[in-house]
Amino acid sequence: MHRVKVRVVEDALDANNTIASANRADFDREGVTVLNLMSAPGAGKTTLLVKALPGLEGVRPGVLEGDVAGSLDADRLADVHIPVTQLNTDQGFGGECHLDANMVRSALPSLPLADLDLLVIENVGNLVCPAEFRVGEDARVMVSSVTEGEDKPLKYPLMFRACELVIINKIDLLEHVDFDLEKFLYHLEGVHPGVPHLLVSARTGEGLEAVRDYLVGLASRAGAPA
Amino acid sequence: MHRVKVRVVEDALDANNTIASANRADFDREGVTVLNLMSAPGAGKTTLLVKALPGLEGVRPGVLEGDVAGSLDADRLADVHIPVTQLNTDQGFGGECHLDANMVRSALPSLPLADLDLLVIENVGNLVCPAEFRVGEDARVMVSSVTEGEDKPLKYPLMFRACELVIINKIDLLEHVDFDLEKFLYHLEGVHPGVPHLLVSARTGEGLEAVRDYLVGLASRAGAPA
Repeated sequence: MHRVKVRVVEDALDANNTIASANRADFDREGVTVLNLMSAPGAGKTTLLVKALPGLEGVRPGVLEGDVAGSLDADRLADVHIPVTQLNTDQGFGGECHLDANMVRSALPSLPLADLDLLVIENVGNLVCPAEFRVGEDARVMVSSVTEGEDKPLKYPLMFRACELVIINKIDLLEHVDFDLEKFLYHLEGVHPGVPHLLVSARTGEGLEAVRDYLVGLASRAGAPA
Repeated sequence: MHRVKVRVVEDALDANNTIASANRADFDREGVTVLNLMSAPGAGKTTLLVKALPGLEGVRPGVLEGDVAGSLDADRLADVHIPVTQLNTDQGFGGECHLDANMVRSALPSLPLADLDLLVIENVGNLVCPAEFRVGEDARVMVSSVTEGEDKPLKYPLMFRACELVIINKIDLLEHVDFDLEKFLYHLEGVHPGVPHLLVSARTGEGLEAVRDYLVGLASRAGAPA
């Protein structure tokens, strides 16, 4: 059984990459840079976006919101006037644990691409599968909160390797949790040497300027109109 | 592509259930009650077990530790003299995001079942897929930490429905986070009416007695030797 399963997933990945390339070409054509934002459930992706996106200088952001069920996160982003499209994965089989390129493709007609410079795809909260599936993004960033523990890079190495930036969130809680930041960074360096990180509290606003700087830089990096 | 994928997963679930029944029969034969413990990454499953299992009256506990990679959690349990078997899911395809019945079956020969009354299977940290795959357990419990936010029952309804008890962990952080406990419980009741919950801080020890009482009751509930 196990062997069959792996084989099927590999086939699915081939198809996924083909569709991801098509998505990427469409995004490039519209001059939109795309960020795939990943984390465990409750790491604070949505709060980060709600706080950081409205203040982006010269960049028109939008969000594609991936959730198993519900539209809570999309509602929070709409409240701060960020264009947002909801993508639920619960059709069919009790909830997909990640976004794949085909799901993102199905949302393309609903996205106001002509009005955007930066599209953030907020993936389903999960530290395993989203790292496997490219969706047509220019960059992948993950959010890891200090409440999750300093061992996470060792336990979910592929996720920490798949991203170009790690945002360490909820640093306002550092004094209240048993989280050894030095040890976390040591483990992170072990699984993904040289990857940069930002220390952030989306709740208090600490470190948000650096996140905005990163996003503005990202938006100018690629996705120039053809 | 999507339709094919769903079909394959359904086939895999049929096979999984067959193997889960075989596991269950083996556990019953040995008089071992089995708990499938699930949560998001970093919710505190291992800390909970490290704190609760050594104090179980009249119950000999053991742990089957599921992780994508590494043996950090198994080491922590071994440190407090709990028999523990490590099961890594990273063979093959970059890390399975859940334990399935066949993985658990492969670990059976390594488990000292004759010396156990209660086996806790600590699943991979993930709020989606583990809820789909029975592994031969008598009961399923999930841990949800207050740092994850009160919206989680609405966003991962299947997981909150799949368990018979929800342990709300890290309540020592309640005063430092924006978590509305009333709202969480309202959402929980909405997706799984009547499911009981326990308020716990594995870190400070608050509420651990109730967890131990539950585990002792669980161990006497089933798994009587044939």
